[in-house]
Amino acid sequence: MGIILGDHQYGKAENRIVRIVRDSPRHEIRDVNVSSCLRGRFDQAHLTGDQGAVLPTDTQKQTAYAFAKTVGLTSLERYAYALATHFVDDVEPVDQARLELEEFGWERVSVGGVEHDFSWVRTGQEVRTVSVTVEGSGEARRTWITGGLKDLVVLKSSGSEFHGFLADEYTVLEPTSDRIMATSLVAAWRFGPVDIAGFDFDAAYAAIKTAMVETFASFHSLALQQTLYEMGKAAIEAVPELVEVRLSAPNKHHFAYDLEPFGIVNGNEVFHADDRPYGLIQASVIRDDAPDAGPAWRQYSGLV
Amino acid sequence: MGIILGDHQYGKAENRIVRIVRDSPRHEIRDVNVSSCLRGRFDQAHLTGDQGAVLPTDTQKQTAYAFAKTVGLTSLERYAYALATHFVDDVEPVDQARLELEEFGWERVSVGGVEHDFSWVRTGQEVRTVSVTVEGSGEARRTWITGGLKDLVVLKSSGSEFHGFLADEYTVLEPTSDRIMATSLVAAWRFGPVDIAGFDFDAAYAAIKTAMVETFASFHSLALQQTLYEMGKAAIEAVPELVEVRLSAPNKHHFAYDLEPFGIVNGNEVFHADDRPYGLIQASVIRDDAPDAGPAWRQYSGLV
Amino acid sequence: MGIILGDHQYGKAENRIVRIVRDSPRHEIRDVNVSSCLRGRFDQAHLTGDQGAVLPTDTQKQTAYAFAKTVGLTSLERYAYALATHFVDDVEPVDQARLELEEFGWERVSVGGVEHDFSWVRTGQEVRTVSVTVEGSGEARRTWITGGLKDLVVLKSSGSEFHGFLADEYTVLEPTSDRIMATSLVAAWRFGPVDIAGFDFDAAYAAIKTAMVETFASFHSLALQQTLYEMGKAAIEAVPELVEVRLSAPNKHHFAYDLEPFGIVNGNEVFHADDRPYGLIQASVIRDDAPDAGPAWRQYSGLV
Amino acid sequence: MGIILGDHQYGKAENRIVRIVRDSPRHEIRDVNVSSCLRGRFDQAHLTGDQGAVLPTDTQKQTAYAFAKTVGLTSLERYAYALATHFVDDVEPVDQARLELEEFGWERVSVGGVEHDFSWVRTGQEVRTVSVTVEGSGEARRTWITGGLKDLVVLKSSGSEFHGFLADEYTVLEPTSDRIMATSLVAAWRFGPVDIAGFDFDAAYAAIKTAMVETFASFHSLALQQTLYEMGKAAIEAVPELVEVRLSAPNKHHFAYDLEPFGIVNGNEVFHADDRPYGLIQASVIRDDAPDAGPAWRQYSGLV
Repeated sequence: MGIILGDHQYGKAENRIVRIVRDSPRHEIRDVNVSSCLRGRFDQAHLTGDQGAVLPTDTQKQTAYAFAKTVGLTSLERYAYALATHFVDDVEPVDQARLELEEFGWERVSVGGVEHDFSWVRTGQEVRTVSVTVEGSGEARRTWITGGLKDLVVLKSSGSEFHGFLADEYTVLEPTSDRIMATSLVAAWRFGPVDIAGFDFDAAYAAIKTAMVETFASFHSLALQQTLYEMGKAAIEAVPELVEVRLSAPNKHHFAYDLEPFGIVNGNEVFHADDRPYGLIQASVIRDDAPDAGPAWRQYSGLV
Repeated sequence: MGIILGDHQYGKAENRIVRIVRDSPRHEIRDVNVSSCLRGRFDQAHLTGDQGAVLPTDTQKQTAYAFAKTVGLTSLERYAYALATHFVDDVEPVDQARLELEEFGWERVSVGGVEHDFSWVRTGQEVRTVSVTVEGSGEARRTWITGGLKDLVVLKSSGSEFHGFLADEYTVLEPTSDRIMATSLVAAWRFGPVDIAGFDFDAAYAAIKTAMVETFASFHSLALQQTLYEMGKAAIEAVPELVEVRLSAPNKHHFAYDLEPFGIVNGNEVFHADDRPYGLIQASVIRDDAPDAGPAWRQYSGLV
Repeated sequence: MGIILGDHQYGKAENRIVRIVRDSPRHEIRDVNVSSCLRGRFDQAHLTGDQGAVLPTDTQKQTAYAFAKTVGLTSLERYAYALATHFVDDVEPVDQARLELEEFGWERVSVGGVEHDFSWVRTGQEVRTVSVTVEGSGEARRTWITGGLKDLVVLKSSGSEFHGFLADEYTVLEPTSDRIMATSLVAAWRFGPVDIAGFDFDAAYAAIKTAMVETFASFHSLALQQTLYEMGKAAIEAVPELVEVRLSAPNKHHFAYDLEPFGIVNGNEVFHADDRPYGLIQASVIRDDAPDAGPAWRQYSGLV
Repeated sequence: MGIILGDHQYGKAENRIVRIVRDSPRHEIRDVNVSSCLRGRFDQAHLTGDQGAVLPTDTQKQTAYAFAKTVGLTSLERYAYALATHFVDDVEPVDQARLELEEFGWERVSVGGVEHDFSWVRTGQEVRTVSVTVEGSGEARRTWITGGLKDLVVLKSSGSEFHGFLADEYTVLEPTSDRIMATSLVAAWRFGPVDIAGFDFDAAYAAIKTAMVETFASFHSLALQQTLYEMGKAAIEAVPELVEVRLSAPNKHHFAYDLEPFGIVNGNEVFHADDRPYGLIQASVIRDDAPDAGPAWRQYSGLV
């Protein structure tokens, strides 16, 4: 038997780039964490240490900062696409490039009711995510784009049931018709064919997030599973360019605290928010004609 | 020489309590992390292991959850005060009780422009903090109350200078007249005498935060030190009940990225947000007639 | 077009179980974080909220704690296998069960040179990981087992070069023939067919870790890529039951600090350990006759 | 009433410095996180933005790296003392300088039983801490030195009782005569007068840690309070130069899991390690002739 090199990839992770636009006294800001990942013919670096095919991760960093100026960050997706196509087109051994971005939101400080020109406060909890994967050049070019969010913490104090479940000899849980449901949502969605140069990804993000949050709030839930499915469906219905939504939802348990020993009726009002363990529910919602996902979900942060 | 017991204290840290009010279909929510700390005559627990004077930390936990129902969490400060006075008044060996709270903010989900009755999304970045320290009973009662916030991340992309500083043989920093200034603010403020039963602490919190953030935005800064002082001063001016404000501000460095090797003019638009090291500036702003702080700043989370 | 449910899975994540063995005055300890994940016919929970096929995550938790007593944790892999086969065999809608474990190491306190019977101190930095995935029952049963570690932080202050790399117009990095190389290693390995009941997984873990760390130390490195490949190869050579090793290595950059402005020769002795960004190198080393990985690498912690 | 500037301090936090000694083929390593804090006449920086008295935090950083070469890190305390005296002696507006260090441990990789010359693996969990505070120059010089550790995680599965405690109407806890006791210890100790140039601080650290861990293991505990007191006492007895030890110990609760519903006798063998809330016990053990602590405990990381 022989031992051989399998899949491999490399890049520069977590370039924390802040891009200001100062064309006018009213600045704009975009705050991103950029990771670039190259896949291609780098076998010799592994097998013999020959770096001749390896563009240093430092160079990838320099390029990410340079493109933040020359291409700009007005659109996260177009910035990522410009970087990815640069690596694939201009660096010979690169077959596929993947850019992963996290965006941290800012809103203008309001001073006496007036938005300030160049002062901001971090907003919300959630982090927006983007990935752009590009393979091949010219006619052979293929592109996969995903969006997403994480750390979106939502809670409803009613409108959630859980009963009628399968029970076995280890089942002690009591059914309930009114519980707190809360999660720190991770979601990612895959776009079908879009006009990268013209599509309004920011508007799509806003529409998807709104669809998800409104569905979480409004939909009477018989199970977190059901709520997730409805949230994914609402997102696809809101943005027809989506072909798939993946959701991962830790069930942030809120246990009604037992106040009976003290003669106090809780009345579903006092809860202990527990840390661990937690239920973890994951689902994909997909168009029945969705194209193959290819490398869209092959994350850089995982294990190869 | 002899070895003796010095200062000591104990309690239950980080009871994560979520309190819903369900008096009407439109729920209310309060989400807090409650730590209780008792100081008093517990020497024998240390010296001989005799627990006769020690109210278990588990009991403190039960009490915190029970009071969340009976006293409620409409006011963080009155809830904390009720717990503190209970421990001092009703548990004989306790001389002083300190309650520390963190509050995590939620805002109602808006569905089609209408606020939802019982669905929320976590809001903002900052965490509100409260401490109430009570000593003695009856005529001898003394109370200290502090408020605060942490993780309030603010940034301004102009209006900040840094020059004219002291230089020695290790000084290589270049002065600048236009830089990004950003921090993740920690602030705490001490109240003078207030009517605990009637004072609107929530309104005070809002006014203090607004004063600080607006000052950060509007004040043209020659130094982070100067900005902090002005923020503290603005807070005291906004809420006359304050006698002191303490501020701790990591200087979250944003370095203009060197794009010259690539023939690109940065123009103060592309920055690397660095993690470590960071400048750390701390200051207290105080009324000249402020009463002695007593145990107001003696935190439970520190070392004794 | 229609919108349909895609892949889905659920379970209980992060049951933090500590198992003591008290058969003799000399106790044993095993400290694990257990996550169970079920895959199967749970569509109705998503589509209609019908929970009839859903074994509650709470039940999975109870089972994990119960098996910690009845099966025990002498072998992480046999414990996980027992849980997985229980879920597949005894819970009708379950087609596949995956158990993921993290283990936190403890070593006995030494008192006056003698190992204590029941007192421990946490040891080392690395966390051991295990996954067992079981599909089908009886003749149709298939099983996949992986091991791994994370947070193994290693550093060498010499014996590492980096030069001869590909350069383009964004390349400013200088080649070096002597640099610090450091990483916080994440590795996972896949076993081929083993006798689950009899194989000594603990011995295999120790042998793999030793092979990796010794290779990191001894192998003169022309690139982190090369070092990773050699570490993976050494692991497979050390434990013939392995068919694949995956490695993910952040390049924890240590930059020689520029002391020239102060007239000081650094001499490759003073380094700034930077946080972000970092190179991230990933590779798989595999036997050329390795069987298909199946669901071995389909992690629960990812997105579906 | 007037608003004035109160206490203030500033510096550079978390310079992560790795110092290699390459005098021979057998390298040495020291890995520290260095924070410097200056106290003095910096009022104008706050009041008017005048930086004339402010040595930039960047300069403090450069100095910390430079001294890592010129003074070296053979002794953490002497390195910190050299920096502190430099700031007090050579920077006119500085009245007091405080250096705080964290040290991360490494041990040599063993290859085939032989220690490697320049390859290391991170060791243990605990982080060593040091502070040196210097005030005044020449005859007026005063110095305070503390040592410490944090994140030292210890557990004993027997030899710990808890009963006879004070009970009130909120007390539901059952007494126990055999429980798991575990903590993640934070300790800090203050030295009395020592010969900074000659004292073996590393040996003192080792002796203190050994005394504490052995006491934790051997001492039969009636309360975590009692164990802490004994640990502090043992430390002072082990190193006569100590005048005070402060300990902060979260009670990392391990709850015996209720397996009765499944007809299983737990037998004190299966535990759930809970995260929050946790008891938090703090105590100081002190010589009865200890000198005043002065600024020894005035941490830089706190609020002013």
